[in-house]
Amino acid sequence: MKEVTVTAPVNIAVIKYWGKRNVKLNLPTNSSLSVTLSQDHMCSKTTVSVDDSYDTDSLFLNDEQNEIGGRLSNVLAAFRSLTEDASLKDAKVKITSTNNFPTAAGLASSASGFAALVFALGKVFVPTYNNSQLSTIARQGSGSACRSLFGGFVAWEKGESEDGTDSSAVEVAPKSHWDDLDALICVVSANKKAVASTAGMQRTVETSPYLMHRAEQVVPQRMADITDAIKNKDFDKFADITMRDSNSFHATCLDTHPPIFYLTDVSRLIIGVVHALNEAAGRAVAAYTFDAGPNAVLYVQRKDKDLVLSIVNDLFGPCEGAQGASHSTLLHEAKIDVDLTNFKHANGLSRIIQTTIGDGPRVV
Amino acid sequence: MKEVTVTAPVNIAVIKYWGKRNVKLNLPTNSSLSVTLSQDHMCSKTTVSVDDSYDTDSLFLNDEQNEIGGRLSNVLAAFRSLTEDASLKDAKVKITSTNNFPTAAGLASSASGFAALVFALGKVFVPTYNNSQLSTIARQGSGSACRSLFGGFVAWEKGESEDGTDSSAVEVAPKSHWDDLDALICVVSANKKAVASTAGMQRTVETSPYLMHRAEQVVPQRMADITDAIKNKDFDKFADITMRDSNSFHATCLDTHPPIFYLTDVSRLIIGVVHALNEAAGRAVAAYTFDAGPNAVLYVQRKDKDLVLSIVNDLFGPCEGAQGASHSTLLHEAKIDVDLTNFKHANGLSRIIQTTIGDGPRVV
Repeated sequence: MKEVTVTAPVNIAVIKYWGKRNVKLNLPTNSSLSVTLSQDHMCSKTTVSVDDSYDTDSLFLNDEQNEIGGRLSNVLAAFRSLTEDASLKDAKVKITSTNNFPTAAGLASSASGFAALVFALGKVFVPTYNNSQLSTIARQGSGSACRSLFGGFVAWEKGESEDGTDSSAVEVAPKSHWDDLDALICVVSANKKAVASTAGMQRTVETSPYLMHRAEQVVPQRMADITDAIKNKDFDKFADITMRDSNSFHATCLDTHPPIFYLTDVSRLIIGVVHALNEAAGRAVAAYTFDAGPNAVLYVQRKDKDLVLSIVNDLFGPCEGAQGASHSTLLHEAKIDVDLTNFKHANGLSRIIQTTIGDGPRVV
Repeated sequence: MKEVTVTAPVNIAVIKYWGKRNVKLNLPTNSSLSVTLSQDHMCSKTTVSVDDSYDTDSLFLNDEQNEIGGRLSNVLAAFRSLTEDASLKDAKVKITSTNNFPTAAGLASSASGFAALVFALGKVFVPTYNNSQLSTIARQGSGSACRSLFGGFVAWEKGESEDGTDSSAVEVAPKSHWDDLDALICVVSANKKAVASTAGMQRTVETSPYLMHRAEQVVPQRMADITDAIKNKDFDKFADITMRDSNSFHATCLDTHPPIFYLTDVSRLIIGVVHALNEAAGRAVAAYTFDAGPNAVLYVQRKDKDLVLSIVNDLFGPCEGAQGASHSTLLHEAKIDVDLTNFKHANGLSRIIQTTIGDGPRVV
């Protein structure tokens, strides 16, 4: 019997992935870039075992047995064809996976889940593979999963080849390079997504006149610019590009026919607060980004974390565990002169997850 | 003494104007196209008089004396330089203007107001001018006002010349060509606009990567296509282009930095209802369009007006004057099988103005 247990992190993109140029291989229309978040607060934990006594593959997600669907079958088939250990070619596997955060929170559990799965299978089937090589397999399970194979700042290069072998994740900078970057995940609603992201992004590819302009004319420069910002730890520039690209992505959703909406009135109020705060401070205090849902992820430097947390909690909470000094006291101490109470929307958030930049997958 | 009283209509664009290539002359980055609405329900009424006894120009808006601002001064100066009647070169004018609809309703009162003003001044100062010639002067007061110089379907050709002389309105088809087109104006909120449209559109010009792509690559084909749809009275095609272009315009607003939001949760629910209804019917029953605010304008064919009115009133009302059969009864009669109650948001609308396609300015 062989068995390995791993954990893999969540990542939140700052240059967004939206649109596939090849649906079967999950090849994207544009490169993307993300920040890996700490596994202390959110991760997927996966155990893979191979044993002669198994007569079929099996999958247990959060303690419930699940069917093994098309994408997982493809991933398993890929590992069986890649392994150089003849005894594994026909061996059956048992996969057990849990998340330490609620999937209903609207966070991208598929990314950490597929990354953990592929990292674990890799350790068993192809132990010589590096994480970039594994990322091309993870990508075929869930596109953004490929970015969870690394910690810190991670680019998913879209690649050029038709077989997808060069569409992989690479580390732009490790967590240690910019270790005081924190993230506040503001959970607006636990509702299911209005439009599943796989169906949504293909509707955008088919109907939005803006998408290819974004992919070809807008994103490449942003990838270069935000990489510079990360290398230089330039938070102002990092924040500016992050917010522009979030809005650019949601604009292509709105340009889809019929349109796709992920942002709600509460999302918009959070956006308004961040711009008002940054303008009053004369610098970027926070940067928002929104995935395919209404929840805001706010990137902040650690020195500003308590301030931003208190603002969000005072205006959109109260949220459990976020109590502290009032935001007006902290604004005063920070010498930022702005009245944000116009943005108030009590109970707009159900929870705030306080986390930070993190490292890549680990063998437990 | 010379005196003339006129009325001019409101118009609602189906291909949107957003962005100026010349701010001083109000020259747009793209052509636009609108439907003129009936003056029975909404119009501006303006009286212009010239008398030797006046020793200064004066302006009364809705019975209150107002300052004569920059854009109105420019319009007056233009007429004084154009007139061939020497006695008018130095004559002072009194202008009195009222709207028969509340300006606070978030509707484009500046378009009908400037159109009425220019039409009235034209009758006094340059009686030989046709409405397209007058539209170039109206455009300098308020861009979209130029389209209110005609009834029916009106294109504002962006023009090519630097002095703006070819940036004028032309009639695409008169009201009589497609007389059974109705409009329901769904007033979501009487709040002031978050961002004034003049400031907003220039922020978009300066910061949105999508805007020039829209102006150069997207709008020209839509102008041609919707003109065809109008000529052929093809409501499906008219509705499809109208909805896509509204979303395209709001997507450029979201792509602006900082982003501009006009649509609210209620706006989005109305959009969702229209797509669900059209899909269930297998044809376009209604087409939505949103200007720089949260209010929906729904274009419908007269045969569908009662059905759409009852849907909107049942889901988002109750609104005064919109009572009638329940929408589920009317859906059943129309053999459209769809449950729209998931979209319900009681009291989301403050009023619904029922109107129809209308004719151009009139001398009273």
